[in-house]
Amino acid sequence: MSVNIPQSSKKRVVIVGGGFGGLCLAKKLRNSNFQVVLVDKNNYHQFPPLIYQIASSGIEPSSISFPFRKIFQRRKDFYFRMAEVRSIFPEHKIVQTSIGKISYDYLVLAAGTTTNFFGNKSIEENAIPMKNVSEAMGLQNAILSNFERALTCSNEVERQELLNIVIVGGGATGVEIAGALSEMKNFVVPKDYPDLPKSLVNIYLIEAGERLLSSMSNESSLSVENFLRRMGVNVLLNKMVTEFKDNKVYLKDGSTIATRTFIWVSGVAGVKIDNMPKESVGRGNRIEVDAYNQVKGMSDVFCIGDQSIMPDGDENWVGGHPQLAQVAIQQGSLLAANLKRKEEGKSLKPFKYKNLGTMATVGRNRAVAEFKKIKMAGFVAWVMWLIVHLRSILGVRNKIIVFYNWAINYFTYGQSLRLILYPKKAKEVMDREERLASLHWGEDLKTSFKDDSL
Amino acid sequence: MSVNIPQSSKKRVVIVGGGFGGLCLAKKLRNSNFQVVLVDKNNYHQFPPLIYQIASSGIEPSSISFPFRKIFQRRKDFYFRMAEVRSIFPEHKIVQTSIGKISYDYLVLAAGTTTNFFGNKSIEENAIPMKNVSEAMGLQNAILSNFERALTCSNEVERQELLNIVIVGGGATGVEIAGALSEMKNFVVPKDYPDLPKSLVNIYLIEAGERLLSSMSNESSLSVENFLRRMGVNVLLNKMVTEFKDNKVYLKDGSTIATRTFIWVSGVAGVKIDNMPKESVGRGNRIEVDAYNQVKGMSDVFCIGDQSIMPDGDENWVGGHPQLAQVAIQQGSLLAANLKRKEEGKSLKPFKYKNLGTMATVGRNRAVAEFKKIKMAGFVAWVMWLIVHLRSILGVRNKIIVFYNWAINYFTYGQSLRLILYPKKAKEVMDREERLASLHWGEDLKTSFKDDSL
Repeated sequence: MSVNIPQSSKKRVVIVGGGFGGLCLAKKLRNSNFQVVLVDKNNYHQFPPLIYQIASSGIEPSSISFPFRKIFQRRKDFYFRMAEVRSIFPEHKIVQTSIGKISYDYLVLAAGTTTNFFGNKSIEENAIPMKNVSEAMGLQNAILSNFERALTCSNEVERQELLNIVIVGGGATGVEIAGALSEMKNFVVPKDYPDLPKSLVNIYLIEAGERLLSSMSNESSLSVENFLRRMGVNVLLNKMVTEFKDNKVYLKDGSTIATRTFIWVSGVAGVKIDNMPKESVGRGNRIEVDAYNQVKGMSDVFCIGDQSIMPDGDENWVGGHPQLAQVAIQQGSLLAANLKRKEEGKSLKPFKYKNLGTMATVGRNRAVAEFKKIKMAGFVAWVMWLIVHLRSILGVRNKIIVFYNWAINYFTYGQSLRLILYPKKAKEVMDREERLASLHWGEDLKTSFKDDSL
Repeated sequence: MSVNIPQSSKKRVVIVGGGFGGLCLAKKLRNSNFQVVLVDKNNYHQFPPLIYQIASSGIEPSSISFPFRKIFQRRKDFYFRMAEVRSIFPEHKIVQTSIGKISYDYLVLAAGTTTNFFGNKSIEENAIPMKNVSEAMGLQNAILSNFERALTCSNEVERQELLNIVIVGGGATGVEIAGALSEMKNFVVPKDYPDLPKSLVNIYLIEAGERLLSSMSNESSLSVENFLRRMGVNVLLNKMVTEFKDNKVYLKDGSTIATRTFIWVSGVAGVKIDNMPKESVGRGNRIEVDAYNQVKGMSDVFCIGDQSIMPDGDENWVGGHPQLAQVAIQQGSLLAANLKRKEEGKSLKPFKYKNLGTMATVGRNRAVAEFKKIKMAGFVAWVMWLIVHLRSILGVRNKIIVFYNWAINYFTYGQSLRLILYPKKAKEVMDREERLASLHWGEDLKTSFKDDSL
């Protein structure tokens, strides 16, 4: 069954994923000679750099989620379809999605990454990931529920499990959520839970490598580590987590930590799409592309952003670029130009990453930032972090609300966002999800493709 | 097992439910000679008059939800416990909750109402209720998902099911959600879904009685009916819904309407609490109280707000008061004073409802309002509606955000809140919910009370 999309005389570009890369590409193709179809499993664009603040009740989900249909209102020959892409049939120039088949002239994969559990089942089943808005909302609910429960728990062991928070992964996400939760512990718990001694709340940040923020300089790593330790976070370096079961985190050195809030932000892997040629799938399930973001071994198929890896296309970044918003945005922007050039018979331009720097924050007045050879830590870096992130959020309204929340947070930690919210699911929606989940993936789709009966 | 609450030399007032009534009572007992324990199944107070605007993507859930712990920060001898109250043991002065037993000196039931399906199983299982924030979030997700799905649906019958919205119940909630959804149809659908003819979106409002808003005057009923008809709502009066199955609404006159969005706001019933004396349970499962909100046949147990009914205590309201915020607030306020008087050995004051009027809105510039003998319809009533509701929302931040959303809505219908958001549930949270659901209710609790092993 094909997805209903009006035919057009223009060539069709199908973009899979509306993150930084896909969104930028779709925007840059405005007024081009292409029909654009954007496919995303959510109906909104999300802003990953601030997702951790949902988990710590600092901002609301709607402030960093922006509906695609609103972004593309009044756009001609543009179609948004909410679906998950499952497989690709390059010989027919078709992608199989959860709602049916979509044909393409050019296909751009920009589906990003998902949490990597490195094949560890005990962790995958019980850990809380924090890769998207939905997971961060779940984590927020878990943290707040565990606090409520700790108050009425008469079993000492269970209470400590409820109040220990273990974060695995010392990258930017790990240090940021560790910082945000330690501010919650230090400034919110004493006011909201006066009968809960804050000394019982323990936050652990575990990193397998020898330093935090391994993609930044040694100085920045040390600054962030010192910030976190002063804020009361237990930073454990050179520690491998091997298992999580029965509310216990097992470390390789034989020690254990009891917890019911086990946050796993230790790595990512490219979103899986079936039927990709084997030679195109590289490290961490990322799709290997050439200097023009063309997928190796395929024609008219491109991949940009975190989902892609360009091992040898950019001489300054042999082995691949970091998985950052800026890379995705620059690749999306260049690909828009290249697709137009291609149609005009011009030669394509290779990608050269312009490094705009990296930054991370762990709390008020505390951040690290690096721009070329300049390294900063502390207040100035923090102000820069605020400005860069506020500028990048879509929509004036969202900028205002996030700024308001941050200002309140700065002066009083007094937001009123510590809500355990969840939608009651309508039966019709649940039924549909069940039906979708029961559809077969991968090889089976080839059969269904042939008989066209899905 | 008892819920862990510090002992106090003061008498303990346990308040079940933090709606308008419970919240008002708890606030008024500040600096009193009581220890106050507030029990609610959510960790936040919600503002029912605007819940329908969550469903129509007009405001975000966090704007009308306010965490109890934030409201009662720095309050002495006050304890909030997140739990569902299930049963009451008046002979032991104990309530059984989902997290354990809580003893009381005075018990105040203020748990409000829940949707009444009048025993119709086919409706209860498949209809979407809209009584609280959680259900409204579910309805919002359902409406937005159904629009997305209609776009790609190749079966004409199914598409029409997805685009028909049927609302049952012509009270304030019914007319307000009908109005909000018809504005969505008229002003949002053409912009967000240019390839979806808005003429395919049909909104039905079905009422069993002969007029809408039966608690208001005939003039107001007619005004609202005219407003809605002009906005394109199919208002069906004198129509009984008998069944809802296989995506079809069955009416008593033999006709049917196909829909996958079947919203049931046709009535409410008092929240069920087990082990109440039979003589105290009145019409619609509401608890019968005397003029002092004391539950009939029980001592030291009170009931206020929607959950209560005062059939003969207030001479101007024989048969009971309307289930409105103002009644709950006034009862909560008087009960606070009466509990203090009781402790001081003074006589209690009987409740006299001061009617501040009623109002309802169906869209921009369109509302009806009644104050004593004054009746208004149109722009002035709408402005009054805005002011009254904005004033009543808790928190400056929330007032600002709601006002901002309304202003944007007024000028452009351009909010960016049409998000299909849901938290991914952490496994730990799901396990707990399962465990709670498996606990026995009602009679069984008596046994568990005896052996104290729950």
